[in-house]
Amino acid sequence: MNKNLKTAFFALLGLCCLQMQSQTKQNLTQYVDPFIGTGFHGHVFMGANVPFGGVQLGPVNISQGWDWCSGYHYSDPTIIGFSHTHLSGTGIGDLGDFLFMPAIGKVNLKKGTAKDMANGYISGFDHKDEVAKPGYYSVILKKNKIKAEMTATERVGFQKYTFPASDQSHIVLDLVEGIGWDRAVDTYIKVKNDTLIEGYRFSKGWAADQRIYFAAILSKPAKKIQLYDNTKEMINKVVSGDSAKAVIHFATSKDEVIKIKVGISPVSTENALMNIKKEISGWDFEKVAAQADEKWNKELGKIAVKSADPAKMKIFYTALYHTMIAPSIFNDSNGDYYGTDKQVHRAAGFTNLTTFSLWDTYRGANPLFTLTQPEKVSDMINSMLAIYKESGHLPVWHLMGNETYCMPGNSGIQIVADAYLKGIKGIDGELAFEAMKATAMQDDRGVNFVKKLGYIPGDSLRESVSYGLEYAISDGAIAMVAKKMGKTEDYNYFLNRSKAYKKYYDPSVGFVRAKLSDTAWRTPFDPFKSIHEKGDFSEGNAWQYTWLVPQDVEGLIALLGGEKPFTKKLDTLFTISGDMGAEASSDITGLIGQYAHGNEPSHHITYLYNFVGQPWKTAEKVRYIVDNLYSDKTDGLCGNEDVGQMSAWYVWNAMGMYSANPYNGVYCIGSPSMDESVLKLADGKTFTVKALNNSPKNIYIQKATLNGKEYSKSYILHADVMNGGELVFTMGDKPSKSWGVAAKDRPYSAK
Amino acid sequence: MNKNLKTAFFALLGLCCLQMQSQTKQNLTQYVDPFIGTGFHGHVFMGANVPFGGVQLGPVNISQGWDWCSGYHYSDPTIIGFSHTHLSGTGIGDLGDFLFMPAIGKVNLKKGTAKDMANGYISGFDHKDEVAKPGYYSVILKKNKIKAEMTATERVGFQKYTFPASDQSHIVLDLVEGIGWDRAVDTYIKVKNDTLIEGYRFSKGWAADQRIYFAAILSKPAKKIQLYDNTKEMINKVVSGDSAKAVIHFATSKDEVIKIKVGISPVSTENALMNIKKEISGWDFEKVAAQADEKWNKELGKIAVKSADPAKMKIFYTALYHTMIAPSIFNDSNGDYYGTDKQVHRAAGFTNLTTFSLWDTYRGANPLFTLTQPEKVSDMINSMLAIYKESGHLPVWHLMGNETYCMPGNSGIQIVADAYLKGIKGIDGELAFEAMKATAMQDDRGVNFVKKLGYIPGDSLRESVSYGLEYAISDGAIAMVAKKMGKTEDYNYFLNRSKAYKKYYDPSVGFVRAKLSDTAWRTPFDPFKSIHEKGDFSEGNAWQYTWLVPQDVEGLIALLGGEKPFTKKLDTLFTISGDMGAEASSDITGLIGQYAHGNEPSHHITYLYNFVGQPWKTAEKVRYIVDNLYSDKTDGLCGNEDVGQMSAWYVWNAMGMYSANPYNGVYCIGSPSMDESVLKLADGKTFTVKALNNSPKNIYIQKATLNGKEYSKSYILHADVMNGGELVFTMGDKPSKSWGVAAKDRPYSAK
Repeated sequence: MNKNLKTAFFALLGLCCLQMQSQTKQNLTQYVDPFIGTGFHGHVFMGANVPFGGVQLGPVNISQGWDWCSGYHYSDPTIIGFSHTHLSGTGIGDLGDFLFMPAIGKVNLKKGTAKDMANGYISGFDHKDEVAKPGYYSVILKKNKIKAEMTATERVGFQKYTFPASDQSHIVLDLVEGIGWDRAVDTYIKVKNDTLIEGYRFSKGWAADQRIYFAAILSKPAKKIQLYDNTKEMINKVVSGDSAKAVIHFATSKDEVIKIKVGISPVSTENALMNIKKEISGWDFEKVAAQADEKWNKELGKIAVKSADPAKMKIFYTALYHTMIAPSIFNDSNGDYYGTDKQVHRAAGFTNLTTFSLWDTYRGANPLFTLTQPEKVSDMINSMLAIYKESGHLPVWHLMGNETYCMPGNSGIQIVADAYLKGIKGIDGELAFEAMKATAMQDDRGVNFVKKLGYIPGDSLRESVSYGLEYAISDGAIAMVAKKMGKTEDYNYFLNRSKAYKKYYDPSVGFVRAKLSDTAWRTPFDPFKSIHEKGDFSEGNAWQYTWLVPQDVEGLIALLGGEKPFTKKLDTLFTISGDMGAEASSDITGLIGQYAHGNEPSHHITYLYNFVGQPWKTAEKVRYIVDNLYSDKTDGLCGNEDVGQMSAWYVWNAMGMYSANPYNGVYCIGSPSMDESVLKLADGKTFTVKALNNSPKNIYIQKATLNGKEYSKSYILHADVMNGGELVFTMGDKPSKSWGVAAKDRPYSAK
Repeated sequence: MNKNLKTAFFALLGLCCLQMQSQTKQNLTQYVDPFIGTGFHGHVFMGANVPFGGVQLGPVNISQGWDWCSGYHYSDPTIIGFSHTHLSGTGIGDLGDFLFMPAIGKVNLKKGTAKDMANGYISGFDHKDEVAKPGYYSVILKKNKIKAEMTATERVGFQKYTFPASDQSHIVLDLVEGIGWDRAVDTYIKVKNDTLIEGYRFSKGWAADQRIYFAAILSKPAKKIQLYDNTKEMINKVVSGDSAKAVIHFATSKDEVIKIKVGISPVSTENALMNIKKEISGWDFEKVAAQADEKWNKELGKIAVKSADPAKMKIFYTALYHTMIAPSIFNDSNGDYYGTDKQVHRAAGFTNLTTFSLWDTYRGANPLFTLTQPEKVSDMINSMLAIYKESGHLPVWHLMGNETYCMPGNSGIQIVADAYLKGIKGIDGELAFEAMKATAMQDDRGVNFVKKLGYIPGDSLRESVSYGLEYAISDGAIAMVAKKMGKTEDYNYFLNRSKAYKKYYDPSVGFVRAKLSDTAWRTPFDPFKSIHEKGDFSEGNAWQYTWLVPQDVEGLIALLGGEKPFTKKLDTLFTISGDMGAEASSDITGLIGQYAHGNEPSHHITYLYNFVGQPWKTAEKVRYIVDNLYSDKTDGLCGNEDVGQMSAWYVWNAMGMYSANPYNGVYCIGSPSMDESVLKLADGKTFTVKALNNSPKNIYIQKATLNGKEYSKSYILHADVMNGGELVFTMGDKPSKSWGVAAKDRPYSAK
């Protein structure tokens, strides 16, 4: 080749590569609308993060209250600043660490009030001035016309502020402010030099003893950095106590941009700084935002769906996005983490995670991850096993090194079991079994009564029925694992305990209810009655909880008198109404009769029809829920997002299936609302679900083929999905009275 | 050589070596009696440790109260167990971490009471059954006839229990118990296997947030290890909460020995275990005890004294021993430590220390260390500079990562200054100056008034006079350093502040007193009056505090009207008596007139006579104190040991000198009570002080020679000591009216 030819060749080659790249580049983030779920009781996080990222950098409103659990609710037109940690979808507010707020003019050290914005750093904003997309958030702060933009990596928040011209531009860092229950107990800021500050914020809240460190690098040397203990200025370059604040001063020209990179660490400021160095070199904000977008695209790309309805695309990918806010990274880029034993563990061989809302997520989100996130599941299980090793039991509701013991049961057990049974790599099976068993044998939280009496007396523990039913689910999981491992004695013991749900069922009323002794039930009894946190049920009533036996649906059917009475009662559930009482849990939302889609104990119930050979009823219910209880509006979630579970339910069901049993690998088939869903599995295989002739009316499966062969079962096995292939449904507007009806075609709890 | 000859030769060689070794081996620990100071208000630590060791392993009595600040008081015939951390000589009780107690028969999980020993693990003991020597402690526990022995390394406590025959032998580990103000807030024990447990104890006390981890290795596999949350047994191998306890069970044959090695760490259980592995391999208890004895001998050997009076040898070496309990190691064998910024610092380049009782020790103990422990001084200063870097100021009274802000002043300043001015190696001079200045410029604790008004108004701060006088001492130190560094502006500023003592002096009464404004004094005024913690003086009265100007004795003399009135008032101090009032501090003990040797503000006063050319008066006073206010009995200290200061005063004065000015390197000469004292300096040189013709009556120096030349000064410079040599005094029973009298021979504050 001569030189010109050579140049041309390489230019061409480059062009080809570029094109190929752009062809493979997906743009699924375009469908994500982070505002979905920021209204009503969704409680989702608003701001910039990467999938499962440790940093959730976003705005904080001034309001506090149940609907501000994430710090942001669509109804609130104020911002007090941008903080680096947020919960998404919980029913309790916490976190909100490291609040930064830019301003000009007079320095306000306090946030102020919504009514008197002049005397605080608070600002108003308009939703029209907001841009929110995966990995990016921006807003114009009305008070000072400062544009705030943010993006993030796993452990670093990247802020970009565009200032007006002013020699009194400044950024307030307020370590006092937190969200919800959070209260700072020990704060610390140190000025290292005019572009670097570091510190920590220890707080008390839902997480009783939360500790988080930061390092912040400025893109431009500060003119001056003042430190304050509340409002008292420090002479030195360090402030400690419970009220540390910093004011970072700049002189800015018109539209001058000041950027800040804030690394966070559960271990030390040193590690926080290291995290910045590892994750963001330089100051190219747009590049980091583009990388965040790419990370989201990569994860969202694990399920490629097709729908002619743009709203459905938006709902689906926003749901998928919302399943990947947490469990979130809780370690440093070198593997260091802070354990629940309150020690720093160095260079762990897994990515330690936190924010385990397990009572919610064991139902749908965790099983979904076994398909789409096998490596992340390995990290989740290893994080949970580390918690076991450090505390003696698997997590219940774990938050940043703290056990909150929120919600009944030991839901960690079934998540570990599911991962083990599905052969997720990188899990020590013997340790996993030890952890499950030890957790199930603790004497705490009513298990002592399970061991002694086989049930939890209603007077010994609040929400005793819910505890008892949840434990039985976990016990069934241990039994399955024990069986697989050949541990016969354990298998028999836990299998027996998994039947404990029968003890709470009173045939004279036809419901589960609080058992006081071997011969006595709590009276009076009302199957509609719910008493939040102080009754016999957790966020529910007897109507809702009677069905909570995913581990033994066959046994439940028998208990309720056989298929006919079972089906009749199930039909009634979706139509009956009654008074839940004045003290009912506000978590019971999304009602269809007494079925409550807004809360987790109901999430598997629609699929019980498959067990009695009436899959068309499942189809009717799930299509109704998919089409009516989810929307692309800010109030698009009918209850708390619950850290991904509400959205995971949607993702499963839009594809046409659900993990009604959370650990046996038998996915019940509902009614696919997507025309096509392609699961891109880790080993490169794909599993495609097609819905031919699908429409809002054609919700009933008429027939199906798996890899070209007729498929009449109303469930699909995890193993079949993992093998890859194609499941093709033909839809119609009338129930098929043959597909999924025969006994052999029904799903099963255990075999 | 033939074979026999060869054998004989090596046998002989071996013998020679052995002999040489035994010749160089000192046995100074024989003079140490750890019981001195365990009675009256001495508050010294009783138990096993190595010099400056992080572990202080010793018995804890059941009594709590002021005289049990170290956990042990000679009056108490009970033991509730043996814990691994203790304070020595403080006025506030704290620590007592990791309490182990052996027993047989019924398991008691609570300590019980002195009256009902049967229902607790408490036992009685007799002093005749105790052996205490440096690095070793043993006692026979009367209740179960168990012999308990203990020794230690820097970070590991080594327990040895000799049990009777019993299949119910056990050892209780109680993490609830602590000493004094200490209260466990978070405890944790984990059984790793049948010979290893680990955990931590976080507590609240004088140190507001104390965190310490442990690992314990058993010499014999336990039959069973039970864990308890208070009295509730745990099923799993982990217990957390605020009441963790463990019971370690053994079956023992008659006289069977069970040993435990307990490593402690401020960082993690992993490091605690590492500390054991680094410091004690194997189970040879006697060897470890012998090594501890050797370590003490090595440190005690840095001053070789001779006295015909065995009691004096005992008092001297016990005093020297007591100066080396703290500052104690607060790091791990790999250099890791937990900083006052609540972060783990890895592999620091110095040995981090804690228990800085600086208001006490800056006077005599720290200057003594500059002669005998230059490397340790480097560690002390670097630990203090780390505290500055982490908290913005030098320590005040620092305990295990916590600033207690106990006692007036910023005494850390003069200690850093002293080390810098004496050229101690391994100190960053610029950082040291920055730290001193930043500390002196804080707005806290009255310094804001010093900066603004030049004095602290009496109504703005309790103990304002003491604060003001202490700050002036620190300011003088900074001035000296600034001068040496050529920082003229700083020199002038701080020199001026060092004269602030004049502001508190009211010539109309002839004393320092609380100044309310530029024109008003606090009335009524009574120079004898002391009000503990709520008055104008800290643990003292105007009689005692008026002399607290070691940085400018010449100025004080002028202030009091010149040498004559000054001397007259000083004479009066030692004879006058008056009513200190009902609220007087119990720290004011060891009175000679109003001179209070039991507390620190008096410690330099006897030497003020040297400044007016009357060294014989100094001699009279110091010999009286040495001979009468120290003894070899349990009540041998006339006040709190104060973490080495009371003993350091003795060590200095027995040699015949004292650091009356704590940082200018001018050591005043008093009256050597030892016939000979040889300081073995770090570079191999020696400095010998001889007292010829010395006797209890011959207390007056008649003449002196330094390295053979006549020496008439009543002081010796640090530099002269460090050069090595010999200072020979000839003593007599009458004051010499020439030695040390001339103006040129008097010590000076600053030149």
